[in-house]
Amino acid sequence: MNTAALPSNFENFADARKQGFLAVKQLKDEGKKVVGVFCTYTPQEIMLAAGAVPVGICAFSDEPIAEAEKVLPRNLCPLIKSSYGFAITDTCPYMYFSDLIVGETTCDGKKKMYELLADIKNVHVMQLPQSQGDEGSRELWLEEVLRLKEVVEQECKVTISAEDIRQAIRIKNEERALLKEFYELSKACPPPITGAEQLKVLYGSQFKFDPVAKNKELRETFEMTKQKAAENGSAVSADAKRILITGCPLAGVTEKVVTTIEESGGVVVGYENCIGIKPAELLVDEHEEPYQALANRYLQFGCSVMTPNTNRFELLSRLIDEFKVDGVVEMTLQACHTYAIETTEVRAHLQKQNLPFISVETDYSTSDTAQLKTRLAAFIEML
Amino acid sequence: MNTAALPSNFENFADARKQGFLAVKQLKDEGKKVVGVFCTYTPQEIMLAAGAVPVGICAFSDEPIAEAEKVLPRNLCPLIKSSYGFAITDTCPYMYFSDLIVGETTCDGKKKMYELLADIKNVHVMQLPQSQGDEGSRELWLEEVLRLKEVVEQECKVTISAEDIRQAIRIKNEERALLKEFYELSKACPPPITGAEQLKVLYGSQFKFDPVAKNKELRETFEMTKQKAAENGSAVSADAKRILITGCPLAGVTEKVVTTIEESGGVVVGYENCIGIKPAELLVDEHEEPYQALANRYLQFGCSVMTPNTNRFELLSRLIDEFKVDGVVEMTLQACHTYAIETTEVRAHLQKQNLPFISVETDYSTSDTAQLKTRLAAFIEML
Repeated sequence: MNTAALPSNFENFADARKQGFLAVKQLKDEGKKVVGVFCTYTPQEIMLAAGAVPVGICAFSDEPIAEAEKVLPRNLCPLIKSSYGFAITDTCPYMYFSDLIVGETTCDGKKKMYELLADIKNVHVMQLPQSQGDEGSRELWLEEVLRLKEVVEQECKVTISAEDIRQAIRIKNEERALLKEFYELSKACPPPITGAEQLKVLYGSQFKFDPVAKNKELRETFEMTKQKAAENGSAVSADAKRILITGCPLAGVTEKVVTTIEESGGVVVGYENCIGIKPAELLVDEHEEPYQALANRYLQFGCSVMTPNTNRFELLSRLIDEFKVDGVVEMTLQACHTYAIETTEVRAHLQKQNLPFISVETDYSTSDTAQLKTRLAAFIEML
Repeated sequence: MNTAALPSNFENFADARKQGFLAVKQLKDEGKKVVGVFCTYTPQEIMLAAGAVPVGICAFSDEPIAEAEKVLPRNLCPLIKSSYGFAITDTCPYMYFSDLIVGETTCDGKKKMYELLADIKNVHVMQLPQSQGDEGSRELWLEEVLRLKEVVEQECKVTISAEDIRQAIRIKNEERALLKEFYELSKACPPPITGAEQLKVLYGSQFKFDPVAKNKELRETFEMTKQKAAENGSAVSADAKRILITGCPLAGVTEKVVTTIEESGGVVVGYENCIGIKPAELLVDEHEEPYQALANRYLQFGCSVMTPNTNRFELLSRLIDEFKVDGVVEMTLQACHTYAIETTEVRAHLQKQNLPFISVETDYSTSDTAQLKTRLAAFIEML
C-alpha cells in the first residue's frame, strides 16, 4: 500500500520500543524508579503518581523461549514463556531496569510463572478477582489497589498525595481520550491509515515515558493524520474488507496476522484487545475518591479471565457497529485456555448478529505464516 | 501381588462408582435432590445439611472426550474435557441426575468450561480466591460459602438450621478421621495393602451416599484390614520402594500410574492429592460458627491454583516423613498449567530434602503405557 500519506512521526511510534531502551536507561541514571507491568488490569496511575516510570514487559518475541522452556512447560502461552525467558536471560532492557515488577493473578500461566520470576526479580502480585459483577470481587480489588499503592510508595520511598494521584488520573485519561480520537479515525470508509499503521501508534505509545510529551505527540499524530488524509485521501482501497481484531494481546511477531489480512484484501479497522481499544475506552471517574475510581475502572476490562465476560461481548457488538465491520478475526495464543474456550461463545455471539468470524491460533514462530495466509485469505474472500 | 489378605468389602468400594448409579437413581425416585460437585474446595456439608446428595462428577474416562473436543479446545486437561463430554452426551448418570452442579473458579479451564456447561445444566459457580493467606481472600470465600448455602437451600426448598449444618460437619469430620485411620495403616513397613487397594477405598468412598452407613463401612474396612494383616501379614514385599504420589486428581484410567509403579518394584503408600490424603487431613472446627469454620477449612487445601501454594509443600514434607517415603512421583494431566509450572518448585523443594522425584505427564488414553513403564521402572530402580 502507498504510505506516502503518513505523517513522519508514525515512525517515532514504530520505533518507540527500541528508542525507549535508551530513554529508560537515562531515567534510571536520573534516579527514577522503573516498574515493569504485565497487564491492562494494573493501574499505572499509581506508578506515575509516585514519580516512577511504568513500562510494559509483556514480551512478543520468540528469541528467549528456548531458554524459558528449560524451566517452564513447553505447552504454555508464548507470551508467558517469552516474558520469563527475557527475565532469566537478562536480555530485555525493560525487564532488566525494572526495580519492581507488578503481576496480577489473571491466568493460570502468568499466576504461576510469577512465583518463579520472584526467585530472580522483585515481584509484587495483585490478586485479580475472577468476576466483575459482585460486591465481594469489587471489595477484594479495591484492597489490592490500595495495597499496590503501599508497595509502590515503599519502593519509591515517597508518599503519594491526593493531588499526585488525581493528576496522574487526569493525564492518563487525557492519553486515553487522545488514543480514542486517533483510532476512531478508522471509522471512516475507507480508513485514513492501515491497521498495521494504527498498531504502530497504539503499541508504540506504551514506550513513551514522559506522559505530558506523549500526549502532545499523540495530539500531533492525530491532527497530522487527519490533515494528510484530507489533503491526499486514503491509501486504503475503498473495497478493502473492514476487519475487527479480537483476542489475545497482539504485537511483535504476531503482527503477522495483521500483515496477512492486509495483504489479502482486508484492512484492520480496530483492535478489541489489550494493545488496542480496550484500555482506552474506559475513563477513570475524576470526581470519585481516586483509589475507588481506579478500582472501579480497572476491574471492568472484558478479558477472558473473567467469568462471565459479558463486557467483551458488549464492546465487540458496539465496535462492529461503530466501525462498520465486515468480519471479525480472533487471534488466540497457543495454550491460552481462557481465550480458546471463550471462542465458542464469541462465535455464537457473532452468529446471532450474522457476522462472519474466524479464530486463528498462533505462537511466536513464523512457521505458520503460509497456513495463516491460506485461512485468512479464504475468510476475506468470502466476505 | 497376593491379595488373599484383603477383606471382602474392598470390592464394595472398588465397585462403588458403578453401584452408585442405581443408588442415586433410587434416591432421586425418593425425591432427594442430587448436587454434582467437581472439586475438593466445595463444602459438601452444605448439601448434606440440606438433605441433598452431593456426588463427585469429575470424570476419569476418555470415552466422551472426542465429543467434547467438538466444542472445547483439544489442548485442554482431559478431566475437563471428559467431564464436559459426559454432560453433552448425557452418558454419566451422576451428571444426568444432578439437579444442580456446583463449580468453582479453580483453574482457567474449569472456570471457562462451566460457562458452556451452564447452557445445558443448572450450574452455580463459586468464586474461589487465588490466595489463602490474606484477609481479603478469606472474606471473599466466606461470602461464597454463604451464597452457596442460599443457592442449595433454594434448590432443595429447605432452610438449613444451625443443628443441620453442625450435624453435617460432625459426620464429615468422622468420615475424614476414618479415612485417615485407614490410609495411615500404610505407614507400616511393609504396608498391609497396596496403593491400588488403598485407592479403591479412597475413591470408592466418594460414591457411598448414606453418610452414616458409609462411616460404618469405613470403620469395618479399617478394622478388618488391620486384623487380616495381623493374622496373615502383608502381601507387600518388605523391599518394595515406598512411593508417595502427588499432583493432579488420580482415578480411573490414570490408575495406570499406580499399576505401573507397583509392577515395577514400588508400593504406593500415600496420595498427596484430591482423591487421597488432602481432603481428609483437615477437620472443620466444630466449636466455631459453622459457615466460618467451613470457609476456614476449605480454603486451606494446598492446590496449585493457589499462589503461593505453601500448604502443599508443608503437607508433602510431613507425609514424606510420616510414611517413610523413598521417592515421590508426581502425576500431572496434560495442559494443566498450574501443576505443570509448580513442578519446578516441587522438584526444588524435594531436592533440598534429598528426596528422589519424578514428574510424569499423562492423559486419559493408554497410548503412553509403555513410556510410563520405562520411566517409572527406571526411577524405582535407582531408589
